Amino acid sequence: MNFDLLRRRDLDFLLHEWLNVSALTKAPRFRDHSRETFDAALDLSENLARREFRSHNRASDLNEPSFDGSRVRMIPEVGRALTAFARSGLLAGTADERLGGIQLPHVVHRACFAYFQAANIATASYPMLTMANANLLIEHGSAGQVRDYVVPMFEGRFFGTMCLSEPHAGSSLADVTTRARPDADGRYRLFGQKMWISGGDHELGENIVHLLLARVEGAEPGVKGLSLFVVPKFLTSEHDGPERNDIALAGLNHKMGYRGITNTLLSFGEGAFRPDGEAGAVGYLVGAENRGLAYMFHMMNEARIGVGAGAAALGCTGYLQALDYARTRTQGRQPGRKDPSTPQSPIVEHADVRRMLLASKSYVEGAMALVLYAARLLDESTTAADHAARADAIRLLDVLTPIVKSWPSQWCLSANDLAIQIHGGAGYTRDHDAEQFYRDNRLNQIHEGTHGIHALDLLGRKVVVDSGAGLDLLVTTMREAVGRAPHGLTPWAAQLSARIDRLVTVTRALWRDGDAERALANATLYLEAVGHIVIAWMWLEQAVVANGHSGTFYAGKHAAARYFFTYELPRVDAQLDLLAERDTQLLDLDTDVL
Amino acid sequence: MNFDLLRRRDLDFLLHEWLNVSALTKAPRFRDHSRETFDAALDLSENLARREFRSHNRASDLNEPSFDGSRVRMIPEVGRALTAFARSGLLAGTADERLGGIQLPHVVHRACFAYFQAANIATASYPMLTMANANLLIEHGSAGQVRDYVVPMFEGRFFGTMCLSEPHAGSSLADVTTRARPDADGRYRLFGQKMWISGGDHELGENIVHLLLARVEGAEPGVKGLSLFVVPKFLTSEHDGPERNDIALAGLNHKMGYRGITNTLLSFGEGAFRPDGEAGAVGYLVGAENRGLAYMFHMMNEARIGVGAGAAALGCTGYLQALDYARTRTQGRQPGRKDPSTPQSPIVEHADVRRMLLASKSYVEGAMALVLYAARLLDESTTAADHAARADAIRLLDVLTPIVKSWPSQWCLSANDLAIQIHGGAGYTRDHDAEQFYRDNRLNQIHEGTHGIHALDLLGRKVVVDSGAGLDLLVTTMREAVGRAPHGLTPWAAQLSARIDRLVTVTRALWRDGDAERALANATLYLEAVGHIVIAWMWLEQAVVANGHSGTFYAGKHAAARYFFTYELPRVDAQLDLLAERDTQLLDLDTDVL
Repeated sequence: MNFDLLRRRDLDFLLHEWLNVSALTKAPRFRDHSRETFDAALDLSENLARREFRSHNRASDLNEPSFDGSRVRMIPEVGRALTAFARSGLLAGTADERLGGIQLPHVVHRACFAYFQAANIATASYPMLTMANANLLIEHGSAGQVRDYVVPMFEGRFFGTMCLSEPHAGSSLADVTTRARPDADGRYRLFGQKMWISGGDHELGENIVHLLLARVEGAEPGVKGLSLFVVPKFLTSEHDGPERNDIALAGLNHKMGYRGITNTLLSFGEGAFRPDGEAGAVGYLVGAENRGLAYMFHMMNEARIGVGAGAAALGCTGYLQALDYARTRTQGRQPGRKDPSTPQSPIVEHADVRRMLLASKSYVEGAMALVLYAARLLDESTTAADHAARADAIRLLDVLTPIVKSWPSQWCLSANDLAIQIHGGAGYTRDHDAEQFYRDNRLNQIHEGTHGIHALDLLGRKVVVDSGAGLDLLVTTMREAVGRAPHGLTPWAAQLSARIDRLVTVTRALWRDGDAERALANATLYLEAVGHIVIAWMWLEQAVVANGHSGTFYAGKHAAARYFFTYELPRVDAQLDLLAERDTQLLDLDTDVL
Repeated sequence: MNFDLLRRRDLDFLLHEWLNVSALTKAPRFRDHSRETFDAALDLSENLARREFRSHNRASDLNEPSFDGSRVRMIPEVGRALTAFARSGLLAGTADERLGGIQLPHVVHRACFAYFQAANIATASYPMLTMANANLLIEHGSAGQVRDYVVPMFEGRFFGTMCLSEPHAGSSLADVTTRARPDADGRYRLFGQKMWISGGDHELGENIVHLLLARVEGAEPGVKGLSLFVVPKFLTSEHDGPERNDIALAGLNHKMGYRGITNTLLSFGEGAFRPDGEAGAVGYLVGAENRGLAYMFHMMNEARIGVGAGAAALGCTGYLQALDYARTRTQGRQPGRKDPSTPQSPIVEHADVRRMLLASKSYVEGAMALVLYAARLLDESTTAADHAARADAIRLLDVLTPIVKSWPSQWCLSANDLAIQIHGGAGYTRDHDAEQFYRDNRLNQIHEGTHGIHALDLLGRKVVVDSGAGLDLLVTTMREAVGRAPHGLTPWAAQLSARIDRLVTVTRALWRDGDAERALANATLYLEAVGHIVIAWMWLEQAVVANGHSGTFYAGKHAAARYFFTYELPRVDAQLDLLAERDTQLLDLDTDVL
């Protein structure tokens, strides 16, 4: 193949010329690192992703895992890739040295991991979940849980999952019904079903570590009564060998894309196995009872950024393939050069193909910028010099998380859609990757909170908590960027500034009477408008860095920024107009008329 | 299943309350018809589509045709469905009685056929192509060609294809290289390859009738040198049995969707067979040499409307399924009613699900209205009382055709996308139809002219030929609708009117210096803006008819129209602004920077 998985030049630009990642090495945590170690990690990732992940991307799509009633079977390339990934050290890439980690900054590790997501989003999901699971246990688990589960996960021997949804409780975690009964020995017995569990069963490692939300018997209803448990597939003790916990695979879901990773319905405590001779799956409480959802958010927030990153990575790699195709495929001639005796043009010469490519570039590089910016905030939240800077980083990341998850999931899917269109009929065949990327990326608007859930999270919570401090900080941060724009970029800065002002006004108008139902009636439009404003900010940032530099790379940044400001940002005006009117037709609708 | 393939009440509304189809029975051609015969045809279609087409829709997706090197194999349900379709008489539904047809108006037949497209878009493509092939031959073929090919096609014994594209000439028909060498006996010998030929090979009938564009040796380059040929898979004569023509299946394309219909690469005259002992595939000229493209447009225009109709049908059926799911699936509670001890709500109660459903309804019913309006124009073009009315119908259909093809292909795919989202995780699995509709409908932006090609057709040809008479007529027709709006609908009429005025101004501005490259630089935005304006007109038409009626059906029309005017039509302003600026960044782009 003639195209890269990701464009390294772009990652270097974002990491170094913009986000100044080398400055992080001044923090004690990262003092053993340098530009050289960062580069080496990226080089390693690119090579490994191409050799072990990319190489079976289509094979794992065509041969999805199957369940014969007792075992899950899948192609061996998946296991080989995961073994190689574990050996690379990247599973513990951001972890403490004391846990075998290499203490990479999150922002660098995020860029490294994007290579794997671009190469094979399904296979990359196993380590993504495992790392997020481990990171939660490091933060909220006991020392024993870290020893028993985190260390084997970092070694690649165990894999992790997150078990939230149930057949009748997907978006609505308040309705989780899985029960946890305290045992005499301090453990718990779990009973219930968990749905949509990615990586929920397989034989890739020695064990699977489920992190599971359940309700201790007698706990209050709603999310306040949820506790978090570690529920391993196999129970281990110092004396005996592994014993099968009472977790049964009730079925595999067969998906449109992301086919390489098992997605499961799991039954806990149904009696398929009887560990210790008792009924129920054995679970170990994480932290304190009834605080499960707060802990789980540690994993959910990481997974949400991971989803946005995966969407961006699929968008980026799809764009590079479409660009390669557009430069080599010839077809037709431009208007005014119609002589059929002349050679046909590369399709990149057609205005509409250029439009599709520029749109894609503006989506995928804008999304990747946002993803890395968010990861940089995560580093800032733990290593910034002063407390206020750390608190601001947490707050800004918090308000941005729904955008980081949702915007790439929507617009990098659009890039994958445009990549099919650029390929024409060829893009609709399974001979090219475009159709797989389109199928794969479609999941990202659904899992880890649907698009609509993130809209409610942004408008119903993130911009209103602490008297709107999150939105204030976002606005201040964007205005600082506007203020930094040099003279040549002031038209774009002014366009962005006008939309920021409008956003503030509209947000106030939406909440002016505190009527949540009315304020949230068009929350998705709000999410999408804020998303486009945030990405315009990302493009202004990139244009500012590129400004004054010559060469095709910087000219490309300028061209994509220009496209975004001309073709994309104006979309938000109609959305903000509608929001400002507090239109209630959705609330007022008699649904019988649909 | 609890949902209809299509909503008959909506078809009746469009056909009778709006398009006054019964009035057509005053025309001599339709005098044997009545509301009763139309209803019977629709009833028959619904039942047959459900029983024979819908029943194998998933099976033909999961078991696509295969080629073992000598024969194409497919599941038997496809053949059974096509036999049943042929027996119903619908293959010759619009044809003259002298050809065994039943002389249904196109508009009624279009609605009938939409049931089959909704039920199984892939299997329905075989008769769609066969009918369009036959209709071309009726118009431009000889009496012998009608006897030898059209009649057997209408009887369901032969199937038809259209062979335009070649591996290096897809959108660019000027570059077709298939050669035709005149034979001593008045026939031609064909040499070349044709790509993306749907239904290009199979064993569903006795013969396959290819309509093929080729260049007679010595003809001029470009589209002016193209001639049209009938090239049957089997040659027949009165004396001998069928002899295999020199057409070899070089391979099947494996697609993301539309899997049930073979899509082929065909080699003509490569020597796999030697009919009459000579080299080359035997072909028969249709009409005169070098007029092939003009003839082919008869089939292309029908196929383009057929593609739009298929996209609309997939959108409609997907919407009905999503609506059924939204009414039965419960999840979460609305803002302000968060008590977890209360039952969960049907998701149709959530504002964002309502938004997705209303958006879908506005797309799919708007698209179906446009498709039937176009089919009504086709009837008007042959049966209107006076010549001027017929000429206007032809002109208006001509300018609308790119919209009829493109708008449903774009926005009913969006409806299928929203249907996945409404289903949540379930929509991403192959347990529900939503994901198949999404994969199937994605083709419609590509075949029968890509989205971008139709944009060039609209802005580069349809609105400029005859001094812009096509656009003038469209504008006049839309303004008449604005003028008919009763008092309660004047706000919407005014909104539409403003955009119509703007469209006229922008079209003039685009062409003011006759620079085609510059005028067409943003042709796709133009196509999309005109599309939204046209669909707003369709919604105004429906709202006018519904106005004053009570009941849920009419209230639904009002609600969807309101949604379209509030949430959708304002999108065009940003597009028209950009067009008005005649932005040239796409033309000026140095593509090395991408």
